Amino acid sequence: MSLSIAHLGPAGTYAEQAAIAYADWYTQLTQQPTPILCPCPSIAQALQSTASGDTKLSVSPVENSIEGSVSITLDTLWQLDSLQIRQALVLPIEHILVAKSQQLQSIQAVYSHPQALGQCQTWLQKTLPQATLVPVSSTTDALNYVDEEGSIAAIASERAAQLYQLPIAQRSIQDHPDNCTRFWIVSQKGTPNPISAPEGSPVYTSLAFSLPANVPGALLQPLKIFNDRHINLSRIESRPSKRSLGEYVFFVDAEADLHTSFFQSALDELTSHTEVLKVFGSYPLVQVAGTYES
Amino acid sequence: MSLSIAHLGPAGTYAEQAAIAYADWYTQLTQQPTPILCPCPSIAQALQSTASGDTKLSVSPVENSIEGSVSITLDTLWQLDSLQIRQALVLPIEHILVAKSQQLQSIQAVYSHPQALGQCQTWLQKTLPQATLVPVSSTTDALNYVDEEGSIAAIASERAAQLYQLPIAQRSIQDHPDNCTRFWIVSQKGTPNPISAPEGSPVYTSLAFSLPANVPGALLQPLKIFNDRHINLSRIESRPSKRSLGEYVFFVDAEADLHTSFFQSALDELTSHTEVLKVFGSYPLVQVAGTYES
Repeated sequence: MSLSIAHLGPAGTYAEQAAIAYADWYTQLTQQPTPILCPCPSIAQALQSTASGDTKLSVSPVENSIEGSVSITLDTLWQLDSLQIRQALVLPIEHILVAKSQQLQSIQAVYSHPQALGQCQTWLQKTLPQATLVPVSSTTDALNYVDEEGSIAAIASERAAQLYQLPIAQRSIQDHPDNCTRFWIVSQKGTPNPISAPEGSPVYTSLAFSLPANVPGALLQPLKIFNDRHINLSRIESRPSKRSLGEYVFFVDAEADLHTSFFQSALDELTSHTEVLKVFGSYPLVQVAGTYES
Repeated sequence: MSLSIAHLGPAGTYAEQAAIAYADWYTQLTQQPTPILCPCPSIAQALQSTASGDTKLSVSPVENSIEGSVSITLDTLWQLDSLQIRQALVLPIEHILVAKSQQLQSIQAVYSHPQALGQCQTWLQKTLPQATLVPVSSTTDALNYVDEEGSIAAIASERAAQLYQLPIAQRSIQDHPDNCTRFWIVSQKGTPNPISAPEGSPVYTSLAFSLPANVPGALLQPLKIFNDRHINLSRIESRPSKRSLGEYVFFVDAEADLHTSFFQSALDELTSHTEVLKVFGSYPLVQVAGTYES
């Protein structure tokens, strides 16, 4: 049976590009049949399909270099607590403006995913100050609104424009040239990893914890536990606990392998300084060179 | 001349409710004319109008108890670096479902601001599993899509439904009963404060800093500086530096007054452990009791 991979759909999203990059790599390494991609209406539904066993893997955006964290991915992982991260992929992001007229001044509105609008905001303000920005559920969904008159444009990937046979009005409109997004490939906890880590890839461990309420400086102790063992934290992100304003869950990416004795001793010590502690696994990080070309 | 207050518009948004609460309070305390509210198309444009002197104050959402940080407010404050926080307001948020039919099963799509959709996601999944969720630029904007047939609903505030004379299909649909949002009222740096702090309100100081690149454990030192002086941090939030993936700006809310000698000594020490340090001022926090009733 082919490997099934859930992602935010429809075809043409950046999550699909990340899923394709992973699928190509899986096919090359294992000589197994090409995985089946399963587009889902939302990031949360993609993760839920893996948690419920409908799909083997799910590809979720975690963080963009400009717009920051993708909250729904972190919140869903914390809530479901049955998923394990198997792989991180960094994908360069190149946004294009799709419009049926080459006259940019005739554009009255630009549709896209809120993250993509955020990643192009300076370009939009300078080039299309007259245009209203309209957030929609995915970059691909935005293409549905592009009109014949050229008054409505969309921001999406080049692949999406090609798939839906829509003209490109301008390439590379993202504000920062090194715009990229990190994705996690997750499976159910404890299932076999479809591919083993390429040698030499850096290994990360992701975990999250809540802290006892009303203890001043409570975050200091967890950070000190890692620092004492020379475990570098490449990222720390707070999310609301959803109980009351001012209570948080902290998500941490550590540059070390969970299966080392020093990491295990850090976890032992962490349990006595945190309220709830959830470990999402150790995994290698792989950079995808260049945007996927269909 | 009346005090001008910018906020995310149009009339009926929660940011407008926060602006009205502040304006009422200002009028009571100062006996000055009622402030003029200036609705803006985006949160960033509201803040920019204050930075450029077109408005005296701006009311911006900072954080919701369920959906977390409002990134654009943090990013814009960091970028502009000319604004000062004068006041924090916590507003309880009650979402209502607006639809022209009382038959919930006929609803095919629900429009709202992404934060509001996030705050009602469990209720939506249980009650309206058939409905597509469509993010738009504000809760009030969503009301434009509500149709006569009752197939398109919107999530907004009760005040917005009243303003636009639309029927309420269901009240209190937010997933968590204590859903609330914290707003900041900001002015240009160094301008006189329109109202002085009510006695006994807790005082916070907000600041943000970037850290030298590739220094393992670099965040530990700033946290330790506050902890050594018994300054509790009620919140720490990371945002991408927008230079490269893995570089962050940290936003911190400290439960202490900037104008104390121990805070000044903390700032002195912080400058040698941070790359860029920006201080957004000290301000009191006020809870607004109950939703604004028009």
